Amino acid sequence: MKKSETVMQHSYRQLADHLVRAIKAVDYQVGERLPSVRAYALAHGVSASTVIRCYRYLESLGLVEARSKSGMYVTDWKAQSVSRSARQTHGAMSAPLMEYDKLMSHQHRMMQLYALTSQPLHLGLHLANAAPAWYPCDALAKIGQRLLRSDPQAIGLYPTGTGLPALKSALIHHLASFGVDLQAADLLITNGSTEALSVALRAVAQAGDTVIVESPVYFGLLQMIENLGLKALEVPCVPGLGLSLEALEYALEHHAGVKAIVAMPNFQNPLGCPMSEKNKRRLLKLVEQYDIALIEDDVFGDLAHQGERPQPVKAWDKHGHVIYCGSCSKSMAPAFRLGWISGGRYHGRIAALKLSNSLVTPLFEQAVLAEFLHSGALPSHLRKLRERLVANIPLVLAAVQRYFPAGTQVLSPAGGWWLWLQLPDNIDSLALLRLAVAEGIAFTPGVMFSNSSKYAHFMRMNIGRPWDKELEQGMQTLGRLLAQLMAARLA
Amino acid sequence: MKKSETVMQHSYRQLADHLVRAIKAVDYQVGERLPSVRAYALAHGVSASTVIRCYRYLESLGLVEARSKSGMYVTDWKAQSVSRSARQTHGAMSAPLMEYDKLMSHQHRMMQLYALTSQPLHLGLHLANAAPAWYPCDALAKIGQRLLRSDPQAIGLYPTGTGLPALKSALIHHLASFGVDLQAADLLITNGSTEALSVALRAVAQAGDTVIVESPVYFGLLQMIENLGLKALEVPCVPGLGLSLEALEYALEHHAGVKAIVAMPNFQNPLGCPMSEKNKRRLLKLVEQYDIALIEDDVFGDLAHQGERPQPVKAWDKHGHVIYCGSCSKSMAPAFRLGWISGGRYHGRIAALKLSNSLVTPLFEQAVLAEFLHSGALPSHLRKLRERLVANIPLVLAAVQRYFPAGTQVLSPAGGWWLWLQLPDNIDSLALLRLAVAEGIAFTPGVMFSNSSKYAHFMRMNIGRPWDKELEQGMQTLGRLLAQLMAARLA
Repeated sequence: MKKSETVMQHSYRQLADHLVRAIKAVDYQVGERLPSVRAYALAHGVSASTVIRCYRYLESLGLVEARSKSGMYVTDWKAQSVSRSARQTHGAMSAPLMEYDKLMSHQHRMMQLYALTSQPLHLGLHLANAAPAWYPCDALAKIGQRLLRSDPQAIGLYPTGTGLPALKSALIHHLASFGVDLQAADLLITNGSTEALSVALRAVAQAGDTVIVESPVYFGLLQMIENLGLKALEVPCVPGLGLSLEALEYALEHHAGVKAIVAMPNFQNPLGCPMSEKNKRRLLKLVEQYDIALIEDDVFGDLAHQGERPQPVKAWDKHGHVIYCGSCSKSMAPAFRLGWISGGRYHGRIAALKLSNSLVTPLFEQAVLAEFLHSGALPSHLRKLRERLVANIPLVLAAVQRYFPAGTQVLSPAGGWWLWLQLPDNIDSLALLRLAVAEGIAFTPGVMFSNSSKYAHFMRMNIGRPWDKELEQGMQTLGRLLAQLMAARLA
Repeated sequence: MKKSETVMQHSYRQLADHLVRAIKAVDYQVGERLPSVRAYALAHGVSASTVIRCYRYLESLGLVEARSKSGMYVTDWKAQSVSRSARQTHGAMSAPLMEYDKLMSHQHRMMQLYALTSQPLHLGLHLANAAPAWYPCDALAKIGQRLLRSDPQAIGLYPTGTGLPALKSALIHHLASFGVDLQAADLLITNGSTEALSVALRAVAQAGDTVIVESPVYFGLLQMIENLGLKALEVPCVPGLGLSLEALEYALEHHAGVKAIVAMPNFQNPLGCPMSEKNKRRLLKLVEQYDIALIEDDVFGDLAHQGERPQPVKAWDKHGHVIYCGSCSKSMAPAFRLGWISGGRYHGRIAALKLSNSLVTPLFEQAVLAEFLHSGALPSHLRKLRERLVANIPLVLAAVQRYFPAGTQVLSPAGGWWLWLQLPDNIDSLALLRLAVAEGIAFTPGVMFSNSSKYAHFMRMNIGRPWDKELEQGMQTLGRLLAQLMAARLA
C-alpha cells in the first residue's frame, strides 16, 4: 500500500516535471488543450489517477486550468508570473508560495495549513480564534501583571500536580452551571484540548484500533488519529442535526472492535450543528450499549447563538463512559493553550499518560484564568461574545448571497463561528484557495475535513470577526475568484 | 506475563490483608517474628516473591519491620498510629498518607511521587528545580509585566508555528556557543523536555520496539517508555564516566531491533556523570554504525561545576542520527515549561507529532525567555548558579559524613544538583522515605530509577538549595532515621 503510493507519487511528479518543461518550452501553447486523462494515461503506461494528480499539480502551479467537461488548458502562465513577481516587489506577498500539492497528501495537510498561516495574509478566515478584541485581553493581562509583580519567585518553582487547584475549582463551578458535576480529582488541566484529545485516544485505543469520527471533521483530529496509528471511521453528520445516529448504529453493528467515538455534540467543527438533548441521550445509550468510550469535545459549548448553554453528553454520564474535553482557547483566551479533561472510568490512565506526555501544564496561565473566572466576569464576557457572533451572521450571509455565484450553498452555524459553504459546479475549493492566497485571503479547503476527497467542493470560513470593509471586500474577492473559476470551466 | 503479574498482585494483597487482620487482632504480638518467607510461601502455596511483596507491603504500613538476617517482626504499631494521629492533630502532616505499596508498582511510581509532593513538606529534596531564589525570577517577571502591558491583545491570538522566531534565534545563538549549529527550521519549541522526549520516541519507535536507556535512569523516562508500549533495555552507567560503551555495544550486538538510545551524556540524572568527548564520539560512532537514533537529553548541560560548558554529542552529528532535546526548566525558568528539540533526520516526523500532540507551545513564556536571552543576561546567571552549586557540595558531603551511618557511600556530581547515595547494609530507601515523610522530608527512593529493584538501597537528593540550618537539620534527621532502621535490623 505504502510502496505503491510512493511509486504513484513518484510517477505523477515525473509526468508533471516533464509537462512543466514542455509547457515552458512552449511545446504546448497558451490556451492549448492537454491530452485527455485517458489518452495521456495510455500513452505513458500509468493509471488515470496518476494523470489526474499530475494535472492537478500543474493546476496548482498555475500552468493549466480546468474547463468543465472540456479538459485542461494551458494558462497564460507568463503573464501570471509577471504579475506575481510584481506583487512580490511591492511587498504584498513576500513569503514563498506554498507547495499546494502537499495539501492533497493527508500527512502534510495540517503542516501546510500552518505554513500558510505564516504568510502575510490580510484576511485569515482559516484561523481558529475569534477577533482578539473580542476576548477579555485587558482584564487577563492586568491579572497577569499583578501576579508577576506580587510573586515573581513562582517562576523559579517546578510546577507539579494535575492542575492549579484555584483553576480547577473555578472550572468545576462553571461546569456545574450546565449540569456537569465533577470533583477536583476528576479534572486534569492539559496543554489545550489537543493534548486532552490525544491522551484520551491513547487511553482507550492502541495502534491498529478503529475510532469513529464525525464527517466532515476537524482535520487536526484526523491527523492525530493517523499519527497514533489508529484508523478513523467517518460517520456522516446531518447539517442542522449533528452526528447521524442511524449511521452510527449501523457502523457499530458492522465494525467489530471500534474503541471510541470522538464527537462534538455542541456546535460541531466545521458544521456548527447543535445536537438535541434527545439525540445526546441516545448517543450515550449507544456508547453504553457497546461499552465503548465517547470522547466529547465541548470547546464550542459556551458559544451557543441562542438560548441556554447546551448540556454536553457528560451531564448524563453515570457509568464513566464519557471522556469530557474542554478548553479556554475558543471562548476565553486563545493564547493560553489551556484545556481540561475529565476521563470518567479512564481518568487514572489519562492522568498517567498526561504526566509522561508533558509532565505538567504551565501554572502562570492557569493562575490568570483562575482569577478571571473567580472574579465572576465570565458570564458577561460570553454574553458579549455570543451577541457579536449573532450580529455578524446575517451580514455575512447577505454578503455570500450578494457576491458569490448562484448555486453556492451556506450552512449557518447554531454556535461558534464556522461558516460551511458548498461551492457550485463542484468547484474545487483548493483551486479557489490558491487564487485567494495570492490576494492575501485564506480559508480552509474542504478537502481537509475527511480522509476521502468528498468535501473537495466545500470550504470553511471563520466569521468570528467584526463586520467591516475588509471582510466585505474579502467576500467580494472570494466571490469574484469563484466566478472566475466557473467561467474558466465553461469557456 | 501481564496476567501472571495480576495474579501475583492479587495474591500478595490477599495475603497481606489476611496478615493485617491477624496483626490487628493481636494474633501476632508486638515484637513477634513472622514466619520465614520460605515457610509462609509453602504454607500458602504461593511463590517466595509474593510473600516478599506481602511483607514489604506490611512494612510500608508500619506494621512489621525487617531485622537484618533475622526476619520480619511485628512493630509497636499502636503506639505509631497514636503518635501519627497526634502529629496530624497538630497540623504537622495533614495530607493523607501515601499508599507506599504503589511506589513499588511501575505504573504508579511517578504518580505517587507527585502525590507525595502535594504534602506539606518542609524539605523537598526530591524536587527537580534548584532553589527559586537561584533563578532570574525578578528579571523574567519584569519582562513579562512589560509584555503584558504593551501588548495585551496577544492573549486573543491563537499561537501557530513551531516556536517564536525570537526565541529560536536566541537559542540558536546559545547552542552555537557550544558547537551545535542549527537553523531555525531545525528547531521546534515544546512543552518542556518531557514533550520533546515523548515525540522523539514516537518518531523513531512503535509499540513493541526496544529502546536503550541508561541505568540508573530518570524514572519519568521509564514511565514514558512504558506508556508508549515500548520496552526499555537498561545499560549500566559507570559512576564518574557515564554510559558504559562496552555494555552498550554488547547490548546492541545481542538485541536485534533496538530503535534508539536515550542518554544524557552531560550530567546524567541521577548520577551527575560527565562523559568524555572521546566517549561521546564513540557513542556517536556506534549510533551511526547501527543506524539507530540517539535521543540526547541535554537539560543539565549548562550546569557543569567546572570548566567549559561541555559539548553534546549533537555537536558532531553529521548524518542526523542525533535528536537533541533541551529545556529551560533546570537552568533558567522551571515554571515556564519550555523545551526544544532538533530532530536531525527525524525532524519532519517530530514536527508533525508535536502538532498533533499539543498543537503549539504557549507564546507568552517564549517571548519572555527570548527577551531575557537577547539581553545577554544568561552567561552571568549561569555562572552564579554554577558557583552556588559548587559551593554547596563540600558542605553537603561533610554533613553526610557527619550525620549518616558509616558505610553510606556518596557520588558527588560533576554537574547539576543530584547527590546519589548508597545506603549501608542494603537498607531499603523506601523504608527510609516512609519515616522521612512523616518528619516532613522527602527525597527520591532508588527503586524509582530502574524497572528492576537493583537500586532499592540507593537514594537521590537535590542539593540545589542554599546550605542553611534547615538543610543541615534535614541531613541530621535522615542520618538518624537511617541509623534507626539499621539498629532495628540488628536488634
